[in-house]
Amino acid sequence: MTAMLLQGLSAFPITPADAEGRVDQAGLGRLLQRLVTARVDSIGLLGSTGSYPYLSRAERRGAIEQAVALAGDIPVLAGIGALRTDEAVALARDAFAAGARAGLLAPVSYTPLLDDEVFSHFQAVAAASDLPLVIYDNPGTTHFSFSPALVGRLSQLPKVVAVKGLAPAADAVAAHLATLKAGVPDDFSVGVSGDWNAAEALLAGAAAWYSVAGGLFPEPCLAITRAAKEGRAAEARQADDRLQPLWAVFRRHTSLRCVYAAADILGLADKAPPRPILPLQGEARKDVAAALQAAGLSYATASGCRPG
Amino acid sequence: MTAMLLQGLSAFPITPADAEGRVDQAGLGRLLQRLVTARVDSIGLLGSTGSYPYLSRAERRGAIEQAVALAGDIPVLAGIGALRTDEAVALARDAFAAGARAGLLAPVSYTPLLDDEVFSHFQAVAAASDLPLVIYDNPGTTHFSFSPALVGRLSQLPKVVAVKGLAPAADAVAAHLATLKAGVPDDFSVGVSGDWNAAEALLAGAAAWYSVAGGLFPEPCLAITRAAKEGRAAEARQADDRLQPLWAVFRRHTSLRCVYAAADILGLADKAPPRPILPLQGEARKDVAAALQAAGLSYATASGCRPG
Repeated sequence: MTAMLLQGLSAFPITPADAEGRVDQAGLGRLLQRLVTARVDSIGLLGSTGSYPYLSRAERRGAIEQAVALAGDIPVLAGIGALRTDEAVALARDAFAAGARAGLLAPVSYTPLLDDEVFSHFQAVAAASDLPLVIYDNPGTTHFSFSPALVGRLSQLPKVVAVKGLAPAADAVAAHLATLKAGVPDDFSVGVSGDWNAAEALLAGAAAWYSVAGGLFPEPCLAITRAAKEGRAAEARQADDRLQPLWAVFRRHTSLRCVYAAADILGLADKAPPRPILPLQGEARKDVAAALQAAGLSYATASGCRPG
Repeated sequence: MTAMLLQGLSAFPITPADAEGRVDQAGLGRLLQRLVTARVDSIGLLGSTGSYPYLSRAERRGAIEQAVALAGDIPVLAGIGALRTDEAVALARDAFAAGARAGLLAPVSYTPLLDDEVFSHFQAVAAASDLPLVIYDNPGTTHFSFSPALVGRLSQLPKVVAVKGLAPAADAVAAHLATLKAGVPDDFSVGVSGDWNAAEALLAGAAAWYSVAGGLFPEPCLAITRAAKEGRAAEARQADDRLQPLWAVFRRHTSLRCVYAAADILGLADKAPPRPILPLQGEARKDVAAALQAAGLSYATASGCRPG
C-alpha cells in the first residue's frame, strides 16, 4: 500500500513565495494544476526545490493544504525536515493533519550530525504521528550522507518506508541500487533524485524518480518514467535524450535556480527564490530560455505539452 | 575603535537551553560570569558553539540582553546568522538594539550559495543597522568557503570590520594570514577559530582568537593569548601545551559536544545540546572528564582557576 505510493514519477515543484516568505498561492496553484492534469504518480511538495527550510511552519502547512485540495487522488508527499528534532516532529504532525500521504525527512544540519543522532531524529519523528516517512538523502544540502547500513537500520522502523537518494551515473547505478536493496525489506521503496541520471536508474530498477524537472515539465518526465518502468529501454533513453539541453543547463546553473527561471519564462510563477539565493540574470537566464527551446519545453499549457 | 574591539581572546560559550529551546538563564549566567571575572577581551555569544541557528529570534535576543547586562565594559559579539536574508536583517537589528557591539554573520546555507549571493546577503545585513559585522567563515557548518578575494570585496563594505576564519596548521598559518591581510584595509581585523591551531596563529599575527575553550576556560586561554600577542612565544607554547589533552578530546568528539559535557561535569550547566545533537555518553564523556583532569581544568570556580 505505502510502497505503491512511492513508485513512478514524484514531481517536485518550486514553492513560489514573496520576499517575506509568504507563499504565492496563485503561482503554486498553476504549477500544481500542471502536475494534476498530467497525472504524475505523486507530488513532492516542499522538497529542496520547494525551498522548505526557507518557509515558516504556517506557510508550509498552508501549501500542503492547497496541494492536497487540488491533487484529488494523487498522493502528496511533503517535506518535513527541520534543524531541530522538535520542529520536525511538529511538521510531521502538521503534514499528516493536512492530508499528506508521506513525509520527506531530510536530516537538515548545522552542526555536523552523527549516524546515531540521525537515527534518533528519525525515531522521534516516526513516533510522533502516523505519517509514513521517506529518507531524504541529499548530502549537497543537508551535509549528511546515509550509508547503506544506516538506511537498512532506519528501514526497520515501521514508518520508514522509502529512501530518496542521489542517482549515481549509469555505470554505477545497478551496484548502488543492489547494495541499498540488500539492506532493506522487500516492500521498501528505493528511489532516486538527480534528474540527469534518473532514466538509467529507473531502467536499473529504481522504484521512483523524485524529479525537479517533473515539477515543471511532468509530461516528458512521465514519458521517460513509464517507458523505463515498463522495460522499454530504447524509448526511455530517447525521451531522456530530448531533455539533454535541460540537464546541461541544470548542471551549469543548478536545477533549483533553473526551474525558478523557467517558471518565470513560461509565465507560470514570477517569484524569485528565497534570498540569499538570487534569480538567474542575463546570460544565465538566456541559457535557460535556450534550453527550454531546444528541448521543446517552451509551452505554458496546463500539462506542459505542445499545444494541440 | 572597532578594530580594537576585535582583538585578543573572544570567548564563545555554549547557550544552555531546555528541550524546547528556552535558554537556561541561570546556566548561561554562570558561564558568562566566569568570562567576566576572567576579563576576556570579548564575549562571542551565539556562535556555532552557542548553537544560534537552533534558537528562536526571541531567545536569541533575550540571551544578548542578559550577556550585555552582565558583561559591563566587555564587548559582546552576537551571532546573527540565519538561512534567510530577511531573518539575518532582523537579527542584526535585534542585536544592535540589545547592545551587542558587533554581529557575527555566517552565511548559513541549505541550497549551496554563490559568492555573489553571499556578498548581497552581507550588503543587505550591513545596510540594516549600525552594527559592525564580523565575517564568520566556518565551512564545516555553513558549507560555504570565503575566498580571500571575497573577504577583500566584503571588507570594502564600511560595516564589515573583521573576519573569523579557521586557523590552518602551524606550517601554513603565516602564508594564510598574509594572503588575507593583503586584500583588506589595515584596520580590518583578521582573526581565527580552531582552538588547537590558535596559539601559532596568534604568534603569526592573527588579531583575535575566537575560542570554544575560552568560553568555558577563559584563564588558560587568556594566558596563551596574552603571551602570544606580546611576543612571548615560548610562554604561549607552554600554556598551549598544557591544553593538549583538551585539544585531543575536541578533535576526537568535536569541541561543541565536549564543552557541553564539560559544563555539565563542572556543575555549571547541565542542559543537553539541541536535538538532534546528542550529549556525549559513556566512554566519550569519560574521555572529556579525563582530559579536564589532565589539563588541570577540573575546577568549577568562577574564573576557572585552581581554587586559592
